Amino acid sequence: MKNKNLLNYSDYLSLEKVLSSQELMSAKRGSPAHDEMLFIIIHQVYELWFKQILHELDSVILIFKQKSVLESDVSLMVLRLQRIIEIQKILIDQIRVLETMTAMDFLEFRDDLFPSSGFQSAQFRLLENKLGLLKDHRINYGRHDYTSVIKEEEKIRVKKTENEKSLFDHLESWLERTPFLSFEGFDFWEQYSGAVRSMLKKEKLVIQDNPNDTKKEIEYHLNEHSNAVLSFEAMIDEQKHNQLITKNKKRLSHKATQAALLILLYRDEPILHSPFNLISRLIDMDELFTSWRQRHALMVRRMIGAKIGTGGSSGHKYLQATADKHKIFTDLADLSTFFIPRSALPQLPEKIKQNLGYHFKS
Amino acid sequence: MKNKNLLNYSDYLSLEKVLSSQELMSAKRGSPAHDEMLFIIIHQVYELWFKQILHELDSVILIFKQKSVLESDVSLMVLRLQRIIEIQKILIDQIRVLETMTAMDFLEFRDDLFPSSGFQSAQFRLLENKLGLLKDHRINYGRHDYTSVIKEEEKIRVKKTENEKSLFDHLESWLERTPFLSFEGFDFWEQYSGAVRSMLKKEKLVIQDNPNDTKKEIEYHLNEHSNAVLSFEAMIDEQKHNQLITKNKKRLSHKATQAALLILLYRDEPILHSPFNLISRLIDMDELFTSWRQRHALMVRRMIGAKIGTGGSSGHKYLQATADKHKIFTDLADLSTFFIPRSALPQLPEKIKQNLGYHFKS
Amino acid sequence: MKNKNLLNYSDYLSLEKVLSSQELMSAKRGSPAHDEMLFIIIHQVYELWFKQILHELDSVILIFKQKSVLESDVSLMVLRLQRIIEIQKILIDQIRVLETMTAMDFLEFRDDLFPSSGFQSAQFRLLENKLGLLKDHRINYGRHDYTSVIKEEEKIRVKKTENEKSLFDHLESWLERTPFLSFEGFDFWEQYSGAVRSMLKKEKLVIQDNPNDTKKEIEYHLNEHSNAVLSFEAMIDEQKHNQLITKNKKRLSHKATQAALLILLYRDEPILHSPFNLISRLIDMDELFTSWRQRHALMVRRMIGAKIGTGGSSGHKYLQATADKHKIFTDLADLSTFFIPRSALPQLPEKIKQNLGYHFKS
Amino acid sequence: MKNKNLLNYSDYLSLEKVLSSQELMSAKRGSPAHDEMLFIIIHQVYELWFKQILHELDSVILIFKQKSVLESDVSLMVLRLQRIIEIQKILIDQIRVLETMTAMDFLEFRDDLFPSSGFQSAQFRLLENKLGLLKDHRINYGRHDYTSVIKEEEKIRVKKTENEKSLFDHLESWLERTPFLSFEGFDFWEQYSGAVRSMLKKEKLVIQDNPNDTKKEIEYHLNEHSNAVLSFEAMIDEQKHNQLITKNKKRLSHKATQAALLILLYRDEPILHSPFNLISRLIDMDELFTSWRQRHALMVRRMIGAKIGTGGSSGHKYLQATADKHKIFTDLADLSTFFIPRSALPQLPEKIKQNLGYHFKS
Repeated sequence: MKNKNLLNYSDYLSLEKVLSSQELMSAKRGSPAHDEMLFIIIHQVYELWFKQILHELDSVILIFKQKSVLESDVSLMVLRLQRIIEIQKILIDQIRVLETMTAMDFLEFRDDLFPSSGFQSAQFRLLENKLGLLKDHRINYGRHDYTSVIKEEEKIRVKKTENEKSLFDHLESWLERTPFLSFEGFDFWEQYSGAVRSMLKKEKLVIQDNPNDTKKEIEYHLNEHSNAVLSFEAMIDEQKHNQLITKNKKRLSHKATQAALLILLYRDEPILHSPFNLISRLIDMDELFTSWRQRHALMVRRMIGAKIGTGGSSGHKYLQATADKHKIFTDLADLSTFFIPRSALPQLPEKIKQNLGYHFKS
Repeated sequence: MKNKNLLNYSDYLSLEKVLSSQELMSAKRGSPAHDEMLFIIIHQVYELWFKQILHELDSVILIFKQKSVLESDVSLMVLRLQRIIEIQKILIDQIRVLETMTAMDFLEFRDDLFPSSGFQSAQFRLLENKLGLLKDHRINYGRHDYTSVIKEEEKIRVKKTENEKSLFDHLESWLERTPFLSFEGFDFWEQYSGAVRSMLKKEKLVIQDNPNDTKKEIEYHLNEHSNAVLSFEAMIDEQKHNQLITKNKKRLSHKATQAALLILLYRDEPILHSPFNLISRLIDMDELFTSWRQRHALMVRRMIGAKIGTGGSSGHKYLQATADKHKIFTDLADLSTFFIPRSALPQLPEKIKQNLGYHFKS
Repeated sequence: MKNKNLLNYSDYLSLEKVLSSQELMSAKRGSPAHDEMLFIIIHQVYELWFKQILHELDSVILIFKQKSVLESDVSLMVLRLQRIIEIQKILIDQIRVLETMTAMDFLEFRDDLFPSSGFQSAQFRLLENKLGLLKDHRINYGRHDYTSVIKEEEKIRVKKTENEKSLFDHLESWLERTPFLSFEGFDFWEQYSGAVRSMLKKEKLVIQDNPNDTKKEIEYHLNEHSNAVLSFEAMIDEQKHNQLITKNKKRLSHKATQAALLILLYRDEPILHSPFNLISRLIDMDELFTSWRQRHALMVRRMIGAKIGTGGSSGHKYLQATADKHKIFTDLADLSTFFIPRSALPQLPEKIKQNLGYHFKS
Repeated sequence: MKNKNLLNYSDYLSLEKVLSSQELMSAKRGSPAHDEMLFIIIHQVYELWFKQILHELDSVILIFKQKSVLESDVSLMVLRLQRIIEIQKILIDQIRVLETMTAMDFLEFRDDLFPSSGFQSAQFRLLENKLGLLKDHRINYGRHDYTSVIKEEEKIRVKKTENEKSLFDHLESWLERTPFLSFEGFDFWEQYSGAVRSMLKKEKLVIQDNPNDTKKEIEYHLNEHSNAVLSFEAMIDEQKHNQLITKNKKRLSHKATQAALLILLYRDEPILHSPFNLISRLIDMDELFTSWRQRHALMVRRMIGAKIGTGGSSGHKYLQATADKHKIFTDLADLSTFFIPRSALPQLPEKIKQNLGYHFKS
């Protein structure tokens, strides 16, 4: 006498579909490999999480697309990124589950998979594009187009995102038009440059006088140091910054870079909390994708050694290379180079401070 | 010119089916709740992992069903359990992802789910039954049958497992007929009892003379201690053991309990490595299910407070209660009560040792 | 020619002291147990982390002690609590390291430890007291005073914190005098009560008509439901709330409870972000201590079975009991009982909204 | 009336020493930086764990030093390595605690630390040497000797280990004299070579005919493939193997490499379980050190950007480079290149199988 129309857990989650989607290739040819089930299921789990990440990412991009971004919008974006981050931690940790399959267990069905491969994951390519990975920054080992291996129907979706504004682009525009950093006569950059230059000078002395170092080491570090000096000069000189962009050494625009630095330096001001959290979560997200690629590369190396991947890639070498090169928000992470202690930070005039926040007291 | 018949990642993983299985109830009634996507996806991920755990569990049970269980079979079972354990760690850790959804976000679509609920997960009930949870050990708050809420088609599968030999049953039989523990004249139990009794006597003195304790505390501990003594007497006296079984204080048969204890005590002997690992992994698995239920209960409490669950359960109280009561292998975990230091362990006669293992040297 | 006065890593960290502080009792009596080193080191690591947690906790309490608590103070406290939370996750995870020591390995040196025990950890007692655990809420199994086993010098420090304002107390005062919730004519409670009462009524109907439930189950749930109703009446009626306090069913004052609820309900308002985060982190912290005690209890059970602890405690039973009873911020976690969907939330008048935050747009 | 001579938790753990070993440099110069406490404590925790890892590593080396290594010795070594692995997971995870300190918080006391640095950790250098890192494999950026910065007293201990037999060396000797792999007439290598060569031939065809690849990609993969062929030829031809050693492309001796491969291929034989686990745990350990260095590099990059490290290193670049180059057991991980499916594996003659294990049945 149960009401048949009541929602049931199983129907709500479409479990009939989801749990009948594991077709073992090894079983098809008559000798089922026990571990192929794990291989299929863990990849389906990855793709489900990718869908969730895309869901969050799309919502963040949608918020950025609004005419104006309110403070509460920024803090909502932070929450969405925070969720992506928690998912990423799981993406990394669950590699340990896959590692319970040994290299020899994998060989039992590896040939059955050919030539399919993780390279064909449309969702992962969507993710990279939406984050802001540029087509010509991709590592491709002579492959003419990363989309060539993707299924026709999905390829269109992926291609489309190449030309859309990415998270990186939106962040850049937002930083460029950020309202809370017009200083109305306060000569922030002059004061700040003084502080940084004196820090850099002090650092140089430290290098030159380091009693632990040999002459050769000192030379090495002085060279590194002069790079930091050049990099700082670009921070305060738009033309120099643009030259670095031309040389592919920077990507974020000069104006956006300055805005991001200010947010990071004055993050203690209430109005900058959410912007600071936004930038920090983007750096976290970038780091976690890097960690995931690195762990993935280690696992693949162990699984197939120097064999080529099922999709014809050179396996772990490709993955390791992308870990280094497919980062998106490096320019944000690198800003710490120009941090100075709070005590050396130019004091904001009271009038500006007032504008930077409500001041509740209890 | 691409061969259309080549296996593609997307087809191999049935991604079209899997990634189109997220239908938001809140969207159906016209106001999509952003977080319902997470709610659906994480539960689908849980069900995929449950399918994988069942796959491993079934294979372990199949091995146990063989006429004879070889050493290499035992070590294969250990590997399969090890995989379950790694999955369980992920089941626990990914609660953190769900916790990025706050109680108020959940309220946006909670009513849409009624009366579906995790209670209706057929796979989880299968899992409990296959592990060996007995129907009348289930906590049910007056509910006449836990299967009443499960979908008709799935209910049959679940019901069927109630009458099948569970992992617990198989383990018990295997322990009872374990070959490596016939001592041929060596009076193990006599020597061992002596050692344990002297340990228990020493412990009693320690309690009586504890300078940190008050009289009341000493009484309390002496009472606990006399329980340990009774429990030990049951270990060496089958009749007493069977009385404990009748009172529902033990479940594992006397013979199997003795065999398990011997495996744990003499685990350093090569032939006992895999049996020792088997028992240890079962205890691990049991502990991790307990941890998962406890974490789950904490999360539910925070999410819905004292509200009832969508399926009409009393939410976290039920979950907390199952964490304590739905354990399967408590009898194995409790054996450590009767461990004694290696130095006090009766020395195996050389002839028996020889039978207990190969002895390679390099 | 190295300058001897330059700071060295080893001296900076006092490694000579720290790394010479592992004295094996088993070695003293002539038969070093390999695993005692792990036992000592992991407990030292725990104590170092406890020191760090106390450092953060003290700083949070110090901030609360200020005459007035600014918005930036609240967000600083959130960061400090966030750090405690990350440490707690490690405290839980590293139990896995200790679990590589088996019960029999532990027996090799267990007797050497008698009667020392984790009960004697002064830092952990300090932590409990500073969080706000009340002396008469402690589970003590007839022990007259938990400090009786603590070393004389340390006992004084612990005793002192019994009479100091705890984190719980400070939070309560702060919530009571929170400025942003005076509604100046806006009849929040009336509107809100209407919404909750209609939610509770709907829930009652749902219980009564649940087609999945038997009569007995329905009775059970109706009883639970009437408790929720009573609890809600206490939320809006100070006298009823105070009765619950008298009966030890609530601890947080009526005024503070109402303030906390408002913060949780209107957390989307910019000015409430930090207060919302503060409350959320406190609930997180409480949950993680509970998880840690639960995991600890499981580990102890496995390690010593039904034996008594080295300090004369009844081991895992005590630990499991404290997991349930030594929570501090239950009243905050339980507030989700009274959450209603955003759509049902009384709209704040524009004038009040203006006061609740800066409104930057980009 | 408490007995003063009873062991107390606090004394047992030398807590007075350990918990008084945090001296803030920033406090010494009059302005204590809140976060310096975390910086000190987490590094002390790292050093305590290093001490524990060394304790386990020393015990493993001691076992290897015995005249003959019994089966039970191998499985004991596996347990010890398993513990190191669990510790390594914590070393990685607790980076998240340090990351709660932001770059600007670090600047508050960074200058106070100069020129001390993690480079001066004697224990970490001991660890690297004992594992088997060779002095001339170290990345040193022109530094004449990595020990030059280590404290005088500790330097002697570190230097000494440069000339001692490392874990790598012991493993190599053990593999070379491994007893269970004399095939008495069974022409394993011939049969196996046939199987591998046919696998490699098949792989070549697959590369040449890959419909997803461009000509350029095919060329690239054929080149990679011919490297695999060369590498395999070295596996069966000692002279070729020795040439690779001369070119620094291999390190493990030909005989040891063959033995390791055989263990991995025939790991299902009971007698090879423990040797298989030993090799697997060494690969795990190597991978986890790599992951730790990679995570560490990411964190340092974020913390100091392009600044130089406090010890005068080029910070994250050095750490990233060591992650790639300071691996010890690469030769073991790479063996998966030559795995073939079980079905293609030469069947061991029954007589040999008999020698490879006890065969209990239940």
